[in-house]
Amino acid sequence: MADPRYLIIADGNFHPLESKTANSVIRYHPDRVVAVLDRRSAGKTVQDVLGFGGPIPIVATIDEGLAKQPTAVMIGIAPAGGKLPDEWTAWLAKSLAAGCDLISGLHTFLSDDPTLAALAAKHGRTIVDARKPPKNIPIAAGLARLVDPFVVLTVGTDCNVGKMTAQLQLTAALKARGLRTNFVATGQTGIFIEGWGTAVDAVIADFIAGAAEELVLRGAKDADIVLVEGQGSINHPGYSGVTLGLLHGSCRDALILCHQSTRDYIGEYRTTPWLKIPPLARYVEMYELIGSAVHPTKVIGVCLNTFDMTDADARAACREAERETGLPSTDPVRFDPTPLVDAMVREREKYQGKKGKQ
Amino acid sequence: MADPRYLIIADGNFHPLESKTANSVIRYHPDRVVAVLDRRSAGKTVQDVLGFGGPIPIVATIDEGLAKQPTAVMIGIAPAGGKLPDEWTAWLAKSLAAGCDLISGLHTFLSDDPTLAALAAKHGRTIVDARKPPKNIPIAAGLARLVDPFVVLTVGTDCNVGKMTAQLQLTAALKARGLRTNFVATGQTGIFIEGWGTAVDAVIADFIAGAAEELVLRGAKDADIVLVEGQGSINHPGYSGVTLGLLHGSCRDALILCHQSTRDYIGEYRTTPWLKIPPLARYVEMYELIGSAVHPTKVIGVCLNTFDMTDADARAACREAERETGLPSTDPVRFDPTPLVDAMVREREKYQGKKGKQ
Repeated sequence: MADPRYLIIADGNFHPLESKTANSVIRYHPDRVVAVLDRRSAGKTVQDVLGFGGPIPIVATIDEGLAKQPTAVMIGIAPAGGKLPDEWTAWLAKSLAAGCDLISGLHTFLSDDPTLAALAAKHGRTIVDARKPPKNIPIAAGLARLVDPFVVLTVGTDCNVGKMTAQLQLTAALKARGLRTNFVATGQTGIFIEGWGTAVDAVIADFIAGAAEELVLRGAKDADIVLVEGQGSINHPGYSGVTLGLLHGSCRDALILCHQSTRDYIGEYRTTPWLKIPPLARYVEMYELIGSAVHPTKVIGVCLNTFDMTDADARAACREAERETGLPSTDPVRFDPTPLVDAMVREREKYQGKKGKQ
Repeated sequence: MADPRYLIIADGNFHPLESKTANSVIRYHPDRVVAVLDRRSAGKTVQDVLGFGGPIPIVATIDEGLAKQPTAVMIGIAPAGGKLPDEWTAWLAKSLAAGCDLISGLHTFLSDDPTLAALAAKHGRTIVDARKPPKNIPIAAGLARLVDPFVVLTVGTDCNVGKMTAQLQLTAALKARGLRTNFVATGQTGIFIEGWGTAVDAVIADFIAGAAEELVLRGAKDADIVLVEGQGSINHPGYSGVTLGLLHGSCRDALILCHQSTRDYIGEYRTTPWLKIPPLARYVEMYELIGSAVHPTKVIGVCLNTFDMTDADARAACREAERETGLPSTDPVRFDPTPLVDAMVREREKYQGKKGKQ
């Protein structure tokens, strides 16, 4: 089967920090993206807006986008609440009629829209709602603590700080070291990139940890190390429940703390700055205390997202994070991920040693 | 409208510690319950099994139960995972045909069963699925921290330790002191008892805190004090996500820690004792640290569930809890709830003082 060709809709919101799904798909599969639809930045290239992605064009209309002959149209933004802007439904209808599949990670399922569902059936196209949870998720039973590979979860100081990107960068680096490494996607964007996973924020609340457990059991097959994509933050007023369910259900052996260095307040509440992001050392304390209540938990490194800083400031931020937490720190997108890869390999060896003694 | 008359199904599982929904409805509305269906204890009275509830009969068949002329048949057990035992569907069909409504708090909605839905329509009966969440729950935005009343949440050392019962006992005692007190139900049993609420464990994971926020805003109307029913436990491997979403979304001013004194291990995992319940002081530390990450959090008292202890042992357990935590402690079902009511009134006065200064 030929590779898919995506037209990504990120209208009005294509931006290094906003259009997370679009940006990540472009970062890891630029060859699959034929165009981005954003009226605000139309005429520019993806490289112009993101600083990566090359000459992929940004177009102003659905017709221009469809003229690039995509095989699928992907919703590339993840707005708070996850609702589809009304205007877009007509674009999606046109896309189905033009022979494209639809791919979405919104909470509101495209396949539940009667018009779109009927059109998809009529034209023989597929609607992929990546946030639709699998059936029969179990209540977590601690089974993830029994798997053989070393399991590492990213945790954050906020939403959208780079937890998924950190894991994808580290996955590549660990594979390059010869370790069989599986990335476990827990959100819609990770699922688009990896091809499987469960959006743990979209399952019924009682089953968050159970969904995480299932994912780790699957990711553990044929792996030396499993890197689980984190979600939200332990002090996020809206999403902390998802974060804790994932923390406990995954029974991870180690954590990597992720932070966007220039962010001062928890993000969704920036219009009325309310919750100041506490020091990194406080996060280490919180995650280790609450994580260890179910399974031994240790933060082993810090990943910084320094996309909006100078090189010198970014290096200084990494040094400061190391000083504050006593842990290795880097920006695995901008700099060499070796300090964190070394930490993971080292901790895994200790862990294997412990397992051997049991 | 006449009061409802319930036949409660708790077959095979009617027990002081197991049939939580049945037991609580009987405790707070014994006048509404005409019979309990449980083949294991048929012939006994509810009083025989629970130690309260009086002469309500326990019957062995659905026909015996329907002969007591209930207006509604209620599912009285909450099994792990929330699934309806297959055998019961026939009983429920018979109940609809006999003119009864159905009331359920299971995760699997009775109204989604085509046979039951068709029968309900045919006989003009109602199926109440208390766990069906309201539409359009928002992402939590910290609004609950702005309400006027003093908000108190119960938190637990495990599921099913008495968090709801504690709040209902304290609600009655606070009302008796002349305080306008609203109980906020967050689970199906509380909803059955209070008549409104949202089962926060049944909403989509991203909306747990938003559901809690909506409930507190509603409960705050015409109240001096709001008592929110807690869910799960911060170290429960399956349900901790629900607990934390509720803790953060409710923006409560104070917590009451609930524990069943004879329990040593987290309950759902008793078949393979895995997670030992840590000391109460450790829970105080965990709840205060993680709660305060979003809104100032203080544990102000301990409620013990001593149903299976002698009076002397129960009193000793309360003294030991006070010694360990430095907080007032009682079993508000068995003993006088005054120590906890005093603590709540005292903390509320301090809080009003602080508010006045803002």
